[in-house]
Amino acid sequence: MSNRIILLAHGSSDKRWCETFEHLATPTLEAVSDSRIAYMELAEPSLDDIVAEGVAEGAYRFTIVPLFLAAGRHLRKDVPAMIKTLEERYQVRIELAPPVGENPQLGEAIKGVVLHQLAETDE
Amino acid sequence: MSNRIILLAHGSSDKRWCETFEHLATPTLEAVSDSRIAYMELAEPSLDDIVAEGVAEGAYRFTIVPLFLAAGRHLRKDVPAMIKTLEERYQVRIELAPPVGENPQLGEAIKGVVLHQLAETDE
Repeated sequence: MSNRIILLAHGSSDKRWCETFEHLATPTLEAVSDSRIAYMELAEPSLDDIVAEGVAEGAYRFTIVPLFLAAGRHLRKDVPAMIKTLEERYQVRIELAPPVGENPQLGEAIKGVVLHQLAETDE
Repeated sequence: MSNRIILLAHGSSDKRWCETFEHLATPTLEAVSDSRIAYMELAEPSLDDIVAEGVAEGAYRFTIVPLFLAAGRHLRKDVPAMIKTLEERYQVRIELAPPVGENPQLGEAIKGVVLHQLAETDE
């Protein structure tokens, strides 16, 4: 295993918020071996937890895929700073991928959701 | 046209944030007639702008589909309050659909994004 995928969600103290992200992550976690979900703040496991776990199991490369629709301050500043700290602390290499919402597949999925919604709403 | 779809994004003063949401919305806007994007705050058009435009064109029913991965305080409190105000102001009916991230299609799309990401990252 050369590269461990971390699906990074924002996190919230609201359990329902985290459950939605866990559902969103499930198809990926089932399809991609050694992939994990982690939260930026306010929920567990934290990014540090997951990197530490990986290191304990011999991983030294990680790719963070943000479960965010777009990049705002968190992805432009906060997460890169967290990555720098973790790379130094654990002597690992962590790549930050673009947020999932920047991939056109998400736009197509949203179209599917809206068409489904319309079919349910129209009388 | 009985029901106008509004894709509601959070909004930001960062133009790149809004561009990402405009790209995300494009397949839907092209596929669904009388659909629009609107921002909750910090960007235009606002929700009020889009409802006012619809009313001027004869619409009286709207469905808001939140371009959010999960429901937090904004979707549980702020947006319902905005809807109440707009329904009274314009004498219209506005339905709030679940955030797109609660639909399993998004989880499948995220899996696709990650598999694509992996193919690019693995050396």
